[in-house]
Amino acid sequence: MKIGILGAGQLGRMLALAGYPLAMRFVFVDPAEDACAASLGETLQAPYLDETALQAFCERCDVATFEFENVPAHTAEFVAARRPLHPPPQALATAQDRLNEKKLFDDLGIPVPRYLPVATRQALDMAVRITGLPAVLKTRRMGYDGKGQAVLRKPDDLDAAWAALGAQPLILEAFVPFEREISCLAVRGRGGELAFYPVVENRHRDGILRLSTPQLADPLQAQAEDYARRVIEKLDYVGVLAFEFFVAEGQLFANEIAPRVHNSGHWSIEGAVCSQFENHLRAVAGLPLGSTAARGHSAMVNFIGSAPDTAALAAIEGVHVHLYDKAAKPKRKVGHATVTAESGEALAERVARLSALADAAEI
Amino acid sequence: MKIGILGAGQLGRMLALAGYPLAMRFVFVDPAEDACAASLGETLQAPYLDETALQAFCERCDVATFEFENVPAHTAEFVAARRPLHPPPQALATAQDRLNEKKLFDDLGIPVPRYLPVATRQALDMAVRITGLPAVLKTRRMGYDGKGQAVLRKPDDLDAAWAALGAQPLILEAFVPFEREISCLAVRGRGGELAFYPVVENRHRDGILRLSTPQLADPLQAQAEDYARRVIEKLDYVGVLAFEFFVAEGQLFANEIAPRVHNSGHWSIEGAVCSQFENHLRAVAGLPLGSTAARGHSAMVNFIGSAPDTAALAAIEGVHVHLYDKAAKPKRKVGHATVTAESGEALAERVARLSALADAAEI
Repeated sequence: MKIGILGAGQLGRMLALAGYPLAMRFVFVDPAEDACAASLGETLQAPYLDETALQAFCERCDVATFEFENVPAHTAEFVAARRPLHPPPQALATAQDRLNEKKLFDDLGIPVPRYLPVATRQALDMAVRITGLPAVLKTRRMGYDGKGQAVLRKPDDLDAAWAALGAQPLILEAFVPFEREISCLAVRGRGGELAFYPVVENRHRDGILRLSTPQLADPLQAQAEDYARRVIEKLDYVGVLAFEFFVAEGQLFANEIAPRVHNSGHWSIEGAVCSQFENHLRAVAGLPLGSTAARGHSAMVNFIGSAPDTAALAAIEGVHVHLYDKAAKPKRKVGHATVTAESGEALAERVARLSALADAAEI
Repeated sequence: MKIGILGAGQLGRMLALAGYPLAMRFVFVDPAEDACAASLGETLQAPYLDETALQAFCERCDVATFEFENVPAHTAEFVAARRPLHPPPQALATAQDRLNEKKLFDDLGIPVPRYLPVATRQALDMAVRITGLPAVLKTRRMGYDGKGQAVLRKPDDLDAAWAALGAQPLILEAFVPFEREISCLAVRGRGGELAFYPVVENRHRDGILRLSTPQLADPLQAQAEDYARRVIEKLDYVGVLAFEFFVAEGQLFANEIAPRVHNSGHWSIEGAVCSQFENHLRAVAGLPLGSTAARGHSAMVNFIGSAPDTAALAAIEGVHVHLYDKAAKPKRKVGHATVTAESGEALAERVARLSALADAAEI
């Protein structure tokens, strides 16, 4: 079976690596010259709106998916008209707009931080009166890794935030004084079967994910699964969906969804029986889902900007290195490592060593 | 780092899949038109003795290895003169000739079944008088998967065996009434560090490996490691070496070595902390070795001739499917699956289901 993937970044790369053992082949579309999945399949280098390239892409694949949630709506519709496309375009449309996303959560009875759309400078003043400070001003579209947002701590911050972001449609969200951030990765097969990975605790710095640790018995597992199920069923979703939550006073508040495999699920390559990448492909291809159960203790550390020396990483027991073969660049995700261990203590010690290497290598 | 691999079959394919996460890239040489690793790297389709292709291969890689132990000696020497080649050519030369191999075992004090070189029909009669019957007549070179050998059970069998094999240099081996067959996979790094996987119990049918089960506490582990260490040190070996043994009356008898990653180590992709494929690449690339420890219970079942339906395989919990994307053909290894489980009982139940599917699919 040939799988078409819109986007050929590291998520496409890891999907392909998971798919070869299933005798899958791959075709990618990506506008980048140096897309890091390109060596793992046929790659059409073209803008996402290039219909000639999209037509060729559709002719070459049996089923299509995406690894990038900002695929233009027109692209998704063009492909979906010609090939089965999973997840469905409505999941993209929802996830691409923070306001639509929040409204969906509201409609489904999933708690969200207070939010208001902001279209004018005056509306921002009014919105802040409702949310209070601190609050977070975000672009409705195209934000990721902390880009396209500004934290408003005091009234003086509003002008600068508006100057930086005000040219685009915005949303103001009340700041949630969270105890922790968790994500729930769910996968749904074409026949409707559903599976959930253990929820993952995520640590960010400078808006970028640094450390993900699957929680083997989190008290919020069932609640997170219930919320993810509501979204998945509403969107008639197929594939892996990531749902990020804030935890405040022991309760979940929806942050955002990503309609794709997700950085907070990379631990599953070695840490779960069947990885998020393989399960996404199984779902998209109509195969039975694999077990989402954890295999012992694990955690994932991201490499931001540049990766530590491979030999230094390989010297830590239980470390599994995943480099994306991308040029070093500040704030860019260039790789990650998952560490597995037999005990929580061994895990903590290895994660500390791994994080120290990652921090020292960052540029 | 770019790794050159002589041979682009399933072992090359699985090496490449293990190497991409380490940001390795690959170039292959293989005479086959439809080599199954070809989509995972640049592939030079050429005979192994084509010096123009070998020169191009050397120019494209930083370090070279092979996935096929019948690489001609001249090819290995040509490459080794231009690039670091691991394992060393003397390991190939030894493993390619059953007589040299047996002599090495003898020299190193490793027990071997009684053996004699056989050059004439008359010599065969004399050899049989020494080994007794049953005995196994084998070609000294190019045998694999039961090819190039004949079991002699009664005096009448000698003529037919000689007619089939006598045109080539032969070796007669006493038949070992073995209780089981095991293999020991060892890996040695460029700096001389050594690691051993748990020994694996192997079941063959029609001369072809069917089932491999790593033994988590085999009483012969230390003895097997000692013998493998002797060979590895004698050959100044770098990379993964597989050593196959017969077990008779609780003692090890050397059968043969393979100077490469080996079918009886495929379980290690999911069943060990660091797979044989990654460890071979780490060794060849001069990286620290990864842990060879098992991760719980696992076993591997080969798919011979043709593979079962992927959906049926994927429906068994803990099954990890590895298809080689090769056309179906009797006796051809077209894929395998590794099954992992939390207990020996769950493993046995899953292996039984998996083996039944494999048997039903065989052509």
